[in-house]
Amino acid sequence: MTYCVGMAIDKGLVLMSDTRTNSGVDNISVFKKMHSWSTPGDRIITVMTAGNLATTQAVISQLEERTKAPEDRQNSLMELPTMFQVAVETGKLLRETITQTQQDNGTRGKGRFTASIILAGQIKGMQPRLFMIYPEGNFIEASFDTPFFQIGETKYGRPIILRGYDRTMSFEDAVKLLMVSFDSTLKANLSVGLPLDLMVIERDGFEATHEKRIEQTDPYFSAISDSWSEALRNAFHSLPDYSFYQASKTT
Amino acid sequence: MTYCVGMAIDKGLVLMSDTRTNSGVDNISVFKKMHSWSTPGDRIITVMTAGNLATTQAVISQLEERTKAPEDRQNSLMELPTMFQVAVETGKLLRETITQTQQDNGTRGKGRFTASIILAGQIKGMQPRLFMIYPEGNFIEASFDTPFFQIGETKYGRPIILRGYDRTMSFEDAVKLLMVSFDSTLKANLSVGLPLDLMVIERDGFEATHEKRIEQTDPYFSAISDSWSEALRNAFHSLPDYSFYQASKTT
Repeated sequence: MTYCVGMAIDKGLVLMSDTRTNSGVDNISVFKKMHSWSTPGDRIITVMTAGNLATTQAVISQLEERTKAPEDRQNSLMELPTMFQVAVETGKLLRETITQTQQDNGTRGKGRFTASIILAGQIKGMQPRLFMIYPEGNFIEASFDTPFFQIGETKYGRPIILRGYDRTMSFEDAVKLLMVSFDSTLKANLSVGLPLDLMVIERDGFEATHEKRIEQTDPYFSAISDSWSEALRNAFHSLPDYSFYQASKTT
Repeated sequence: MTYCVGMAIDKGLVLMSDTRTNSGVDNISVFKKMHSWSTPGDRIITVMTAGNLATTQAVISQLEERTKAPEDRQNSLMELPTMFQVAVETGKLLRETITQTQQDNGTRGKGRFTASIILAGQIKGMQPRLFMIYPEGNFIEASFDTPFFQIGETKYGRPIILRGYDRTMSFEDAVKLLMVSFDSTLKANLSVGLPLDLMVIERDGFEATHEKRIEQTDPYFSAISDSWSEALRNAFHSLPDYSFYQASKTT
């Protein structure tokens, strides 16, 4: 499994991914799921992946190859004029990679090798944008109503984002929110694991404003994990108490 | 979908279930998923169900029939000597109902019509016990390490139970905890819906100490739902702040 979140706030984009991949619980490894390309001053494009690792690595490698020799290649991430077109190209690559592997495996391949992608970035002269790309190659874009996307093990960490998100929040608060969301997920699903990758992209910065790998020993993540238990308990006790008597009165 | 939780605490058992059933989002109904039988002074047995509604209703009807004419019927819930044997019989009924419907439908029935059950109760002279029964008819029992079971849409509401649960908590706190867990789930999954059914079974009470249907208009549930957003935000802001500077130092 995997857990990745991409969040759009007024100040820019905040992205976080775990790094655990597993093929059975007895075969886990650390693989980077966040990949970024930038031309400072012109554009930054970051991709997070969930799903079949061979599929996602193939897609990333092809995106990477295109950026390395842009003069030879059409549709390089670094040449496309808009984030929309970057999403179209990435979606096409994803769909083709999945379809090809499925076909190569005949009936055994049916329904397998799928993956999905969160794409975030900004190109000069345009807004920061955030997309979720489906295995079918089509995609949706974050909006005022739905300003964040999750892929992988999305459920455990969702309630806190729904409650804590605020468009006007600071980057520091956004990072804190994602850390809490990841901590809840890590506690509940063994197949999501540390280290985490964090990237903050400030609006009109066109490069990673802040980038960090959060390791097992990270003191801030440990502090969040410890104090969140305590804070939740306090929050819980601050709620009005249930009363059997009142409750029966209202029945 | 469905969401049901059964929780064992020192004082007894606390059970909550939603009542929404759906066959597509355009076909939702209210059905009771919590069913209880008791002989005050001797035993109380409560069952919560998730899964195919025809399956779960068939199981409940058969359990019900057996209790209505216990002199004619073996294996009535009201006659079995232990909760373990109640779990065995309920599991057997569940498995047989599923298998029969699957067989009746040939290949079209494969993998369908499944359901699972949370069984809770106490029989005089023994401890309160809590079981989760699988579609295969086998089951597990709650223990000191895993003192609660969830069925249906379990993920959204799990983190708060993991953090908030305390064996020594009062019934009032346990109800509050379940309300928060259900509120998080209701907010995230449309197929879990109000009203909720609540039952509290005090140890050695052998009847429902407290039973309530929590409707859309329930003032306590509304208060919890509103104040939990506020309390969570406060909890969130009480956490140590992330600092880009410290973060880079620790990299």
